[in-house]
Amino acid sequence: MGRRVVIEGGLLGTEEGAFRADLVIEGERIAAITLDASDIDADERIDARGKLVVPGGVDVHTHFKDPGDPPTEGFYHGSLGAIAGGITTVVEMPQATPTSSEGAHIRQKRAVGEQHSIVDFALWGGAVNQDLEKIDEMIDEGIVALKSFMAGSSPGFPAATDDTLLAVFRRVAEVGIPYGLHAENDDLLEAGIARLKAQGRKDPMAHAESRPPIVEIEAIHRAIFFAEQTGGHAYICHCSTAGGLELVKAAKARGVPVSVETCPQYLALDEEDLRRLGPFGRCAPPLRARDEVEGVWRYVADGTVDVISSDHCGYTIESKEAGLDDIWQAPLGLSGIQTMYPIVLDDMLHQRGLDVGTFVRLSASNPARIFSLYPRKGTLQPGADADVVIYDTEREWTVHGEDMLHRNKWTPFEGRVVRSRVVRTIIRGRTVYQDDGAPMVTGEPGTGRFLPRGYGRMRD
Amino acid sequence: MGRRVVIEGGLLGTEEGAFRADLVIEGERIAAITLDASDIDADERIDARGKLVVPGGVDVHTHFKDPGDPPTEGFYHGSLGAIAGGITTVVEMPQATPTSSEGAHIRQKRAVGEQHSIVDFALWGGAVNQDLEKIDEMIDEGIVALKSFMAGSSPGFPAATDDTLLAVFRRVAEVGIPYGLHAENDDLLEAGIARLKAQGRKDPMAHAESRPPIVEIEAIHRAIFFAEQTGGHAYICHCSTAGGLELVKAAKARGVPVSVETCPQYLALDEEDLRRLGPFGRCAPPLRARDEVEGVWRYVADGTVDVISSDHCGYTIESKEAGLDDIWQAPLGLSGIQTMYPIVLDDMLHQRGLDVGTFVRLSASNPARIFSLYPRKGTLQPGADADVVIYDTEREWTVHGEDMLHRNKWTPFEGRVVRSRVVRTIIRGRTVYQDDGAPMVTGEPGTGRFLPRGYGRMRD
Amino acid sequence: MGRRVVIEGGLLGTEEGAFRADLVIEGERIAAITLDASDIDADERIDARGKLVVPGGVDVHTHFKDPGDPPTEGFYHGSLGAIAGGITTVVEMPQATPTSSEGAHIRQKRAVGEQHSIVDFALWGGAVNQDLEKIDEMIDEGIVALKSFMAGSSPGFPAATDDTLLAVFRRVAEVGIPYGLHAENDDLLEAGIARLKAQGRKDPMAHAESRPPIVEIEAIHRAIFFAEQTGGHAYICHCSTAGGLELVKAAKARGVPVSVETCPQYLALDEEDLRRLGPFGRCAPPLRARDEVEGVWRYVADGTVDVISSDHCGYTIESKEAGLDDIWQAPLGLSGIQTMYPIVLDDMLHQRGLDVGTFVRLSASNPARIFSLYPRKGTLQPGADADVVIYDTEREWTVHGEDMLHRNKWTPFEGRVVRSRVVRTIIRGRTVYQDDGAPMVTGEPGTGRFLPRGYGRMRD
Amino acid sequence: MGRRVVIEGGLLGTEEGAFRADLVIEGERIAAITLDASDIDADERIDARGKLVVPGGVDVHTHFKDPGDPPTEGFYHGSLGAIAGGITTVVEMPQATPTSSEGAHIRQKRAVGEQHSIVDFALWGGAVNQDLEKIDEMIDEGIVALKSFMAGSSPGFPAATDDTLLAVFRRVAEVGIPYGLHAENDDLLEAGIARLKAQGRKDPMAHAESRPPIVEIEAIHRAIFFAEQTGGHAYICHCSTAGGLELVKAAKARGVPVSVETCPQYLALDEEDLRRLGPFGRCAPPLRARDEVEGVWRYVADGTVDVISSDHCGYTIESKEAGLDDIWQAPLGLSGIQTMYPIVLDDMLHQRGLDVGTFVRLSASNPARIFSLYPRKGTLQPGADADVVIYDTEREWTVHGEDMLHRNKWTPFEGRVVRSRVVRTIIRGRTVYQDDGAPMVTGEPGTGRFLPRGYGRMRD
Ligand SMILES: [Zn+2]
Ligand SMILES: [Zn+2]
Ligand SMILES: [Zn+2]
Ligand SMILES: [Zn+2]
Ligand SMILES: [Zn+2]
Ligand SMILES: [Zn+2]
Ligand SMILES: [Zn+2]
Ligand SMILES: [Zn+2]
Repeated sequence: MGRRVVIEGGLLGTEEGAFRADLVIEGERIAAITLDASDIDADERIDARGKLVVPGGVDVHTHFKDPGDPPTEGFYHGSLGAIAGGITTVVEMPQATPTSSEGAHIRQKRAVGEQHSIVDFALWGGAVNQDLEKIDEMIDEGIVALKSFMAGSSPGFPAATDDTLLAVFRRVAEVGIPYGLHAENDDLLEAGIARLKAQGRKDPMAHAESRPPIVEIEAIHRAIFFAEQTGGHAYICHCSTAGGLELVKAAKARGVPVSVETCPQYLALDEEDLRRLGPFGRCAPPLRARDEVEGVWRYVADGTVDVISSDHCGYTIESKEAGLDDIWQAPLGLSGIQTMYPIVLDDMLHQRGLDVGTFVRLSASNPARIFSLYPRKGTLQPGADADVVIYDTEREWTVHGEDMLHRNKWTPFEGRVVRSRVVRTIIRGRTVYQDDGAPMVTGEPGTGRFLPRGYGRMRD
Repeated sequence: MGRRVVIEGGLLGTEEGAFRADLVIEGERIAAITLDASDIDADERIDARGKLVVPGGVDVHTHFKDPGDPPTEGFYHGSLGAIAGGITTVVEMPQATPTSSEGAHIRQKRAVGEQHSIVDFALWGGAVNQDLEKIDEMIDEGIVALKSFMAGSSPGFPAATDDTLLAVFRRVAEVGIPYGLHAENDDLLEAGIARLKAQGRKDPMAHAESRPPIVEIEAIHRAIFFAEQTGGHAYICHCSTAGGLELVKAAKARGVPVSVETCPQYLALDEEDLRRLGPFGRCAPPLRARDEVEGVWRYVADGTVDVISSDHCGYTIESKEAGLDDIWQAPLGLSGIQTMYPIVLDDMLHQRGLDVGTFVRLSASNPARIFSLYPRKGTLQPGADADVVIYDTEREWTVHGEDMLHRNKWTPFEGRVVRSRVVRTIIRGRTVYQDDGAPMVTGEPGTGRFLPRGYGRMRD
Repeated sequence: MGRRVVIEGGLLGTEEGAFRADLVIEGERIAAITLDASDIDADERIDARGKLVVPGGVDVHTHFKDPGDPPTEGFYHGSLGAIAGGITTVVEMPQATPTSSEGAHIRQKRAVGEQHSIVDFALWGGAVNQDLEKIDEMIDEGIVALKSFMAGSSPGFPAATDDTLLAVFRRVAEVGIPYGLHAENDDLLEAGIARLKAQGRKDPMAHAESRPPIVEIEAIHRAIFFAEQTGGHAYICHCSTAGGLELVKAAKARGVPVSVETCPQYLALDEEDLRRLGPFGRCAPPLRARDEVEGVWRYVADGTVDVISSDHCGYTIESKEAGLDDIWQAPLGLSGIQTMYPIVLDDMLHQRGLDVGTFVRLSASNPARIFSLYPRKGTLQPGADADVVIYDTEREWTVHGEDMLHRNKWTPFEGRVVRSRVVRTIIRGRTVYQDDGAPMVTGEPGTGRFLPRGYGRMRD
Repeated sequence: MGRRVVIEGGLLGTEEGAFRADLVIEGERIAAITLDASDIDADERIDARGKLVVPGGVDVHTHFKDPGDPPTEGFYHGSLGAIAGGITTVVEMPQATPTSSEGAHIRQKRAVGEQHSIVDFALWGGAVNQDLEKIDEMIDEGIVALKSFMAGSSPGFPAATDDTLLAVFRRVAEVGIPYGLHAENDDLLEAGIARLKAQGRKDPMAHAESRPPIVEIEAIHRAIFFAEQTGGHAYICHCSTAGGLELVKAAKARGVPVSVETCPQYLALDEEDLRRLGPFGRCAPPLRARDEVEGVWRYVADGTVDVISSDHCGYTIESKEAGLDDIWQAPLGLSGIQTMYPIVLDDMLHQRGLDVGTFVRLSASNPARIFSLYPRKGTLQPGADADVVIYDTEREWTVHGEDMLHRNKWTPFEGRVVRSRVVRTIIRGRTVYQDDGAPMVTGEPGTGRFLPRGYGRMRD
């Protein structure tokens, strides 16, 4: 029997709601949920009275870009942000040097992660118009999902052609994995940028104007089409529009295999923040008008949105500052892994009248399920990996970039007062982060485990 | 601290599936779910190795008719059938002497139940075209739902007029309780019977022919209309047709507050059984053609059906035999409380490829939720009432009327071989029934608790 | 060759719009449509310069109640109102003494009409819960449609039971005729009246409050259900609610055989008129709130509404005045046959931006088609019956009850200024009415023709 | 007054059906429709007894490619095929040398047509990713519609980008003209061809396999999306799939501005013909499997299909023969202008149980309406242009390439026996073609009129 840890007095959050119980961990697993663990001997006792105890966050959309040349975030620093942000598992995106697009890349990336990561991690494979054989190699190496950009992202990650989309959808229909899509229409987007540039526009709002909602909605419409035609599971990344979510909702109702994520930037920021933040608010899809933001919340509330992920991109401040006078010079993406779930939890519980069950479903159970990690991840049931996060849902703190633990010390939420704070993060039974006033990292690089496809059903 | 019971070695069933864990009960509540309770001292240890441990069944559609003149089933005998059938809570229908239709009736019925019941029980109130004031009286007495017949059932339970339907739907929209409907069109049904009788038909199939699927489908169509217009929750009782379930599915998709139950007779019997069983197969809606049965299973599998209940009617053999030569003389309703969940579990796991999660949702969690008993009932989470049923899902037995524990010793499933057997039933921590080869009742009348509306959220 | 009449210089209205042409009539038929008939010899030349020439109105919903005891309107007086109102064919409702409900009644009614009518006429049969054999008798006598009340109308016209509805829908599916329904829910309506009466309400608005939109919408919802289940054609009479029309629109889109009429009272009056008019504004369904009226116009504009008919009820002023102090004492129904199409045409062309094509479709072609009278009626194509109405669409007049030609000299449109006036009405080639400043009737009783089912395809 | 022609004794076809009447033409216009024109003096009397007299066909999809270098068909030879095929108006596609893509091209093309055409003609403009200013130039020159290829067609006609589609849809929403789309997905199609070629496939079926139904369905799905988002009218060219038509039907039901054409090759040929004909059966979309063909007929019958056009491409036999050993070498497109309407009329009346009204709507009235030529074109109403075609619907003939009057003497319908023959074609009052046993052309080049946008409402 392993080391025993007892978490006492907390309110346990599950998909169905929350209830008062103690949690007993033995070794790496949840051993028991009990009303009263006071009689149980333990190597460690954690007082969770007045706190919320939930399954560790499963952030399925991170960009640690490791190996990376130059390095931007990496598994180690990314893990620091994650554990401080209530995340115990990430599913890392295929952007790296090189882009993950064949079996060897996955092996290499896995090795890097196993060496540096604190959080457990699974891997996306990139579908970049390569041969299906290379995709099958990645599947053989245990990736949990495939990812394509419908709009070109970078030299290493060109836009997937419709032919690629169709072929990959057919393949994922056979294999049974989700096909994640950055859903923006490549042509509309490029034309939009060219038009704004031709007008001499370089201000922050030019970025948003260059890719209005229809750019995203068309791509989602097309992704759903391919899913419906092939039976492959479309996973819509970072949805930012009410129009896109309405399409997803209707598709689900007629039985199309589709799920959808959104991100904190589409829930807690809007285009006024883009105006204010300039390059530090540049991401894709862009920050939207307030109406869209309210629309996205509506589809969170009605169950259309399955997942909230960070889409964390750890760009350097210098690279972002390059866009101060010319928004087009700033790289696309926001840092956010550390702030995501505290902000979302605050908004859900204190602003939006949503319950703990909603938070657990969107931050842990649903992502674990969609990416075949459930029920080893994403739940507190006995036998599950003991990935546990304790929140003080009443504690207020103010977001400051300098307090971020990830590599690059900035955040688009600078100055936001958040009422909900991670006070402890436990991965497979070991406390990796705690904050009794002062944050303290106790996790060590190289302890994060690689999670192959189907991990959720594995016994050992 | 109360008496401690440990259930060891079993497979625990939840809404999300099943996992290996031990269950610890203290007093009346679930105290812990733990991977290994071998170290925990206990007053009683129950060996569940190789067995399935699930939340006790919540049968929301029983007809104990207590007080009844003459008595037919009663809370005591009904409870015996229930506990032998894996049921720990019933929601008892308003049929009784008199029909529950005002506050005093509920008080009286509650008193009878508290004196005789072994299972915990909540109560339906009847909406029988009386003044809304009397309905409000029943609401004040703690009923969890209202029930109407869209087709007249008995002198004490006339068909609800459309005006009643509309008024009650508006009232339940305010109060937030479900409005259960026996959904058959009164006029079509009466005309159908008159037509068949005029033809001199007295054979069993005349019963089915007199109320074809359209009789039910029209009523469901209308019930959904009122739910959609008013915002009141329509709870469709004992749905027997694919056409009706399709309407429910479409209504749910557009946001209408509606839920639906079916019963074992529409899943495990068909019109050939009616032909064979004659009066002992007469119920309303009638047993259906094989196509309809397969259709109902389809909507069980896709999640449209929310609840499986028994609609248990404990008629005497004599009263049923009155229909041997003339089907119209047999009363409407089947006995089935003891056989329901074992048969459903057998069919789900061994015939239909469905999982334990589906069984738990339809037999326990969903009914508890819809009738405001969740999470005190319908789940095994710590803090919940320790209502637990242990099944041996491999043990085969043959259904015989003489083995039934309810008052009247007959069953429409006579001779059916069932692979799934209740081996123990626990209500609030006390074993009330067990079967280690020979069934043994240990529960005592008067121990069943009355469950008022909102019981699920009550702390004590 | 018969007598030749030339109508010169007018604008010809068809379903597709309007164009400049002369019309040549020979005997009873349209002989030619020609750009220039000035060379054609004619017995009579009618100058239509600046006028609109359209197919005679086909009013499929009239209550002449002939034979009637006591007589209220009758074929003769009803015809006078019709021809002054641009109507050349009526389909007369089965209310009479006795209600048309068997073959003999149709023969008798036909004989009365052939003796007294000026306009051509077809007949509805009543489906009043009688044996289907009697319905078949009426079909054999040439009725063009069947009619039921979903809410009871009078002792002779009880509410059709759902069993009747189902049986008649199945029969009309075989025969291929429309089944017209007065769509109000009997029970809701009776309960509503009882409630208002119990409150001591006798004011005009009590009438409207007693049968709110849901009373009609439920009935339409159910009618559509039966049409969808049976394949029989539901013809929804006098629809007064946007909610009902939305249901019809959706049903049409999924292929249900349904069509729908509205009446001028739901287009050109609203509940403020009921308040003002008292018993003279009492009809069923009642005059509606302004929102509903605008809603009905929306469904006129989008093509959902198929027919505009009068639902003309020629009650005596005395009988209406009985409701002055007690609205419940006034009979249900409005006089309107003479004012309908001028008002509708005025509103369409001058207020609502609709075109002549819409007017022709709703007043002539569609009703002729639905009731199997097309293309002998409802169109100006050569070979069709020469039923022609000439409007001066710019001439203004003021509605006065005393100017009505039907028997009882009142109108709910008293004082309304109408810009569109019937200046000539021609039935099968003979001018029956003209108005060159002073109205003049030239039609003679007994010249109206009985139109049996299928008349539209008859050659002679 | 112009020359007077009387067409006697025929059955006149209209959108609503057919009826017996004589037709009187004066000068260029229909002067009268009359039951009996025997008294009317005429310069010419045409005996149409036993014949069908319909509005001249409006073929909105022709490829005369004039000016063309080298010339392939041209307005003159194309006209010959047209008039022998019952077509009196064409809307000529922008393919030519150069592709019509700016104002000057339209002026030039108009001049060529005015010099050589026998049939009246309107012009499409090409949307080939050029500046919107050039599109506006073409609009100013009177084009009736814009056309894009969603899959690249030729160097002069590249695939429209999504940005072009969006911009043009927005523009046509303002202008109120249809935006015609060759709806095949460029990327899927190119990839499909590359794949088949890589396999060494050169056989005819390789062509069909390279662009399966999904290639078309995706493009239609996207076209509808843009129409719905912008309010611009999508006109789907040559739809060949049931799946595409189902999308159109659903879009129409929810109010999207969309219309759709199909062609004889998708109604009267199937993939077995492609196998048989080889290069002479190569077109895009390709000939489809029998199931699709039956599906397309279903949507013709239910009114989803608005237009039947020829997509006539007059390739030389030599150019087609280049594909005999290698299907990819044959140009895409079929000759068919002369055979289209006789075959369609035969199939509708004699094989498919459809009526003359359907033929008139799809061959004349609908295309005229959609392209703003109605009611000057597409109807026989007095005042319309006297474009008349007389069919002998009982006369049988066998299709032979050598009998074709268009430039290149081949046809994919070689050997087909057709029961329906054009016996006379009249354009604005002048007989341009007749066949009393031997075909005779009497029309002269340069008599065809250019029809600017809005011609249908022009008085002169
Ligand atoms: Zn992305
Ligand atoms: Zn990303
Ligand atoms: Zn029942
Ligand atoms: Zn029951
Ligand atoms: Zn009525
Ligand atoms: Zn009426
Ligand atoms: Zn094309
Ligand atoms: Zn073409």
